[in-house]
Amino acid sequence: MSKVNIIISGSSIHVRTLDSAVHFLLSHSKTIVPSPPKTTMAYPGYGQQPFGQQPFPGGADPLWGYFSSVAGADGQIDSGELQRCLTSSGISGTYNPFSIETCRIMINMLDRDYSGKMGFNEFKELWTALNQWKTTFMQYDRDRSGTVEAHELHAALSAFGYNLSPNAHNILMKRYATNGRVAFDDFVSLCVRLRGLTDQFRRRDAQGVGMANFQYDDFIQVTMFM
Amino acid sequence: MSKVNIIISGSSIHVRTLDSAVHFLLSHSKTIVPSPPKTTMAYPGYGQQPFGQQPFPGGADPLWGYFSSVAGADGQIDSGELQRCLTSSGISGTYNPFSIETCRIMINMLDRDYSGKMGFNEFKELWTALNQWKTTFMQYDRDRSGTVEAHELHAALSAFGYNLSPNAHNILMKRYATNGRVAFDDFVSLCVRLRGLTDQFRRRDAQGVGMANFQYDDFIQVTMFM
Repeated sequence: MSKVNIIISGSSIHVRTLDSAVHFLLSHSKTIVPSPPKTTMAYPGYGQQPFGQQPFPGGADPLWGYFSSVAGADGQIDSGELQRCLTSSGISGTYNPFSIETCRIMINMLDRDYSGKMGFNEFKELWTALNQWKTTFMQYDRDRSGTVEAHELHAALSAFGYNLSPNAHNILMKRYATNGRVAFDDFVSLCVRLRGLTDQFRRRDAQGVGMANFQYDDFIQVTMFM
Repeated sequence: MSKVNIIISGSSIHVRTLDSAVHFLLSHSKTIVPSPPKTTMAYPGYGQQPFGQQPFPGGADPLWGYFSSVAGADGQIDSGELQRCLTSSGISGTYNPFSIETCRIMINMLDRDYSGKMGFNEFKELWTALNQWKTTFMQYDRDRSGTVEAHELHAALSAFGYNLSPNAHNILMKRYATNGRVAFDDFVSLCVRLRGLTDQFRRRDAQGVGMANFQYDDFIQVTMFM
């Protein structure tokens, strides 16, 4: 049995198998989340660019073993498999596990070929985003009630680089809050859709002026997929 | 105790209380659904105009008693109350009850003042739409499996007046189908969002040419609310 050596923040941690390395990293996921790069905003109202795939410490790719245990022979996972994978990874911590609805739109956010499935590279990209969203959510959910309030949601989205109007914030609360508070699963669902829709809008705003023209069929494709 | 007289298709049916009238009408909901008006399409790709509020037979408004039993003192219902109301009405029949997620977007589809709640007039409008969607769904779900296939979804949406591209249909299946089949709750969720997003698009397409220009913040308000 060969040892796998993983170095985090200068400490050397020896684990006996790749599986235990994976579990260690999953249970310490906050420590391996890279800070979002300080990108210059193209103009107000847009979120930051996707971070892309981040390298893992030690050069190994600890999520691979985890992903491959749920992926089928095609090396892809669907929303049900993603839900099982995320639930057993414990990424939700003390929060409720992700709903199948949220897992569906997580797949769609990164599903550029409309396959309805997610490959490993997309899974890593999602993992990075999820950890950022979870870290931010926990910053505002100080009493660990599992929810955040309107002004905290506003602050979280501003921290992600979104500069939305009070009307837009009001609409987000109406759509995602229950009794004035947004639960973790709904917060992630909101972040997934906001990021995906913003990406699609940006692609149609070639001038970068915050305006985009949609044909009806294209509008339906973009908005119904998220 | 006064009798309530309800005339349906020329037959006179006497019931002893308003409650029993309500229950009769709920259990025969298919018979009270007016056929959609044959509107002339403005141009291909758009759904039909909302039917508006339909009069009920006999001049009485049997849904009022039902609505008011779940509505709070403000005469409005939220998504949780709508879910209870629809579940106990039996409108889903043998299909699974509506999820809270679907009830949320049902509220939003008609929530023109962003109150997050639904008044009685909107409830009646929703009831009419739900009955049309259920009737159409059952036409295609002949084996009562609770699901329809891709070509049946296509036919159902065409019957509603939508003229979407093959790409758009493909995306709807990717988003709403499980193992290639769309369940009733997902079908209704799809119909609610498709109608709401089409309505919003139409408002921004003043020329009626199938093109609309969106500012980013407006785009997010429209698309995140549904």
